Parts: sequence; C-alpha cells; structure tokens
Amino acid sequence: MADADDAVIGRRGSQPKGVARRQEILDRAIEVFRARGADGTSLRKIAEEIGVSHAALLHYFDSREQLLVAVYAHAEARRDKPAALVPGIDTMIDAATRNVEVPGLVTLYSTLLAASLESRSEVGREFFATRFERLRAELTASLRAQQAEGTVRDDVPAEHLAALIIAASDGLQIQWLLEPSVGLESTLRTLGALLRPPA
Amino acid sequence: MADADDAVIGRRGSQPKGVARRQEILDRAIEVFRARGADGTSLRKIAEEIGVSHAALLHYFDSREQLLVAVYAHAEARRDKPAALVPGIDTMIDAATRNVEVPGLVTLYSTLLAASLESRSEVGREFFATRFERLRAELTASLRAQQAEGTVRDDVPAEHLAALIIAASDGLQIQWLLEPSVGLESTLRTLGALLRPPA
Repeated sequence: MADADDAVIGRRGSQPKGVARRQEILDRAIEVFRARGADGTSLRKIAEEIGVSHAALLHYFDSREQLLVAVYAHAEARRDKPAALVPGIDTMIDAATRNVEVPGLVTLYSTLLAASLESRSEVGREFFATRFERLRAELTASLRAQQAEGTVRDDVPAEHLAALIIAASDGLQIQWLLEPSVGLESTLRTLGALLRPPA
Repeated sequence: MADADDAVIGRRGSQPKGVARRQEILDRAIEVFRARGADGTSLRKIAEEIGVSHAALLHYFDSREQLLVAVYAHAEARRDKPAALVPGIDTMIDAATRNVEVPGLVTLYSTLLAASLESRSEVGREFFATRFERLRAELTASLRAQQAEGTVRDDVPAEHLAALIIAASDGLQIQWLLEPSVGLESTLRTLGALLRPPA
C-alpha cells in the first residue's frame, strides 16, 4: 500500500536521506495531530510544533492537504497488519476495531475524507477515490470467490456488498466514537450474518 | 426536527424579528457554502460574503462551528420531506438520494461530522450525537415493528440494523460523490434485500 500512496501524494526527495527525513517528519506530525486534531492547523503551525522550519516542511509537502494525507497514509501503513488474510467482512471488522484504538486516526480520516469532497481538493480527492476503488475491487473479488464456494449469499451483486461493507465500517466507526454503546464490532458482525446464505 | 435542532445549537433572539433575521442569514450562508465549501472559511469572511457585519453574525452565532451546524440543520429542514412515512430503509434511500442532489450538502455534513469528533468540539458533537441517537431510536422502533409483522428478518437485533442502515447511507453518499458509478440507490436497495426474511 505504501507505494501506491506515495504515487498519489507526490513524494519528493527520492534519495534515501530525503526519504528518511520525510518519514521522521511524518512520525512527529502524527503525534501533533493526536494531541491537537487536524482542524484549523496551518502548515506554519505544524512546522513550529514538530520543530522544523516552514521551508523544510514545504520541501517535502506542497500543501497542508498533502501533508495530512501523507500523515494518514503513514499512520495506516505503520499499524501492524495481519498479512495474507483474504479481504472480507472479518478483515474489515479487524481494521475498524484497530482504527478506533488509535486516538485521532478516525478523526483525521474523516476530516480528510470530508475535505476531499470540496471542489478545490486535488490530492485528497485522488487519494480517497483511489483508496475506495482499490478496497472495493479487492473486496468484490474476494466476495465473488466466497459466493462461488457458498459462504456468501449469491442473490445480490458482490460489488454492492463490497461498497456496503466499506460504507458501514466507515460510518459505524464515527457512530461508535460519538456513542460507544453502539457496539462497533457486534454491529459489523450482524452485517456479516446478513451476508451468509440462508441455512 | 427544527425545534430539537434549535435547542442544540443554542438559538438566540427568540423574538419574531430576530428569528426572521437569523433565518435570512442562514439562507444566505447556505449559498456561500454551496459556492465556496465549508473548509477554511472564517466567521469574518462568511460575514463579509453574506453582507452582514461580523458583530451581527456573532449576535446570532457564538462560533463558526455553531453557524455551520445551524446552516446544515436549516438546509436539511428546508428540503421538502415526505410527511408521515414510516422510517425504514425506503425513507433512508429517499433521504440519501435527495441529499446528493443538493450541491455541497453532503460535503458540509461530512465536514461538520468530522469536526464533531475533534476533542474541542461542543456544539457539533452534541448535535450529531443527538441526531444519530434520534435516528437510531426511530429506525429501531420501526424495524422492530417490521420484524413483528414478518417483513424484516428477526434473527438479528433491530438496533444493529438501524445503526447499519445509517452508517451505510452516510458512507455510500461519500463513495458516490467520489465515484458516481458506485450506484447509491441500487446499493442501498441491496441492503434492503439483505434485511428481508428468507423466502
């Protein structure tokens, strides 16, 4: 995933030293966002807080949006991911429950996603459009295989189920953050139950 | 819904003239957001664009967040709503497809929802927590009645289905805005199919 994201967010400084410095900046930027949130923070202020010059920050990131998208992609890539799992409702439940454990990650994701809908967004719009497309394609292929083997009901289109699982996971993380009694995992397991073929 | 929202967003100026003026400001503010988006617009700039003084705006709204939440509630209330429909998947499909027809409404909703997750949010957090709670309660009651009459499967908790329908609707509106081929209405109809009891 890191390579695809780097392409989208226009990584500069491809020499090893530049890459390492960029990672360092992102590591510190994540801490700033955890502590302060993403809303209303200028690039200049972020530079101040992570202790680099504004010019240095602009060397690596063209805009605040580009930095924020890179921070999100970096935070997501940094998390331990279970390797080689078949994408499906279980991997989405796993990702959703791990997301809400990282303070600020869902907030940052939601903030960037909302900003990507603004007409002047470029980096964010491309990042999220690409991300959703990839996720939907992976899930659809996996759900089709499960439909063929009889573990997912096959009377509904796999691509609809893929879009629904992603939407439900995104939406429920927010509902859960606002009201923890909602039951993020149990509600997603109910979606899993809806996907199974009638006994 | 207007009364509940007014309580949350702390309406001032309860005399008729103040109310009318406030509505007028909100009508003009909606146009500003449609044209410019909600991101990065200060209260002073908004006042300038809608042609009122900054002080006048502060008389009606304590903060930028309060104004934005009021704009969203106002835009939502202003849309024609089908009266006396039983809440359920069909009313949610109807609301979702009408939402995406109003330019900027989903963007404003998503921006405010993301901001409500920030720790310093007060107005927005209360508005959305209350809104989700009311929607979930209405949908749950309605789904329970449908489970009792046999039109919705009853082997899964109605409150999970309610949270899922809202999450799917919110999430799919965003996916659709980024990629219109996703099929907002058809995908939500598939969720409707998942809710029906096995034939």
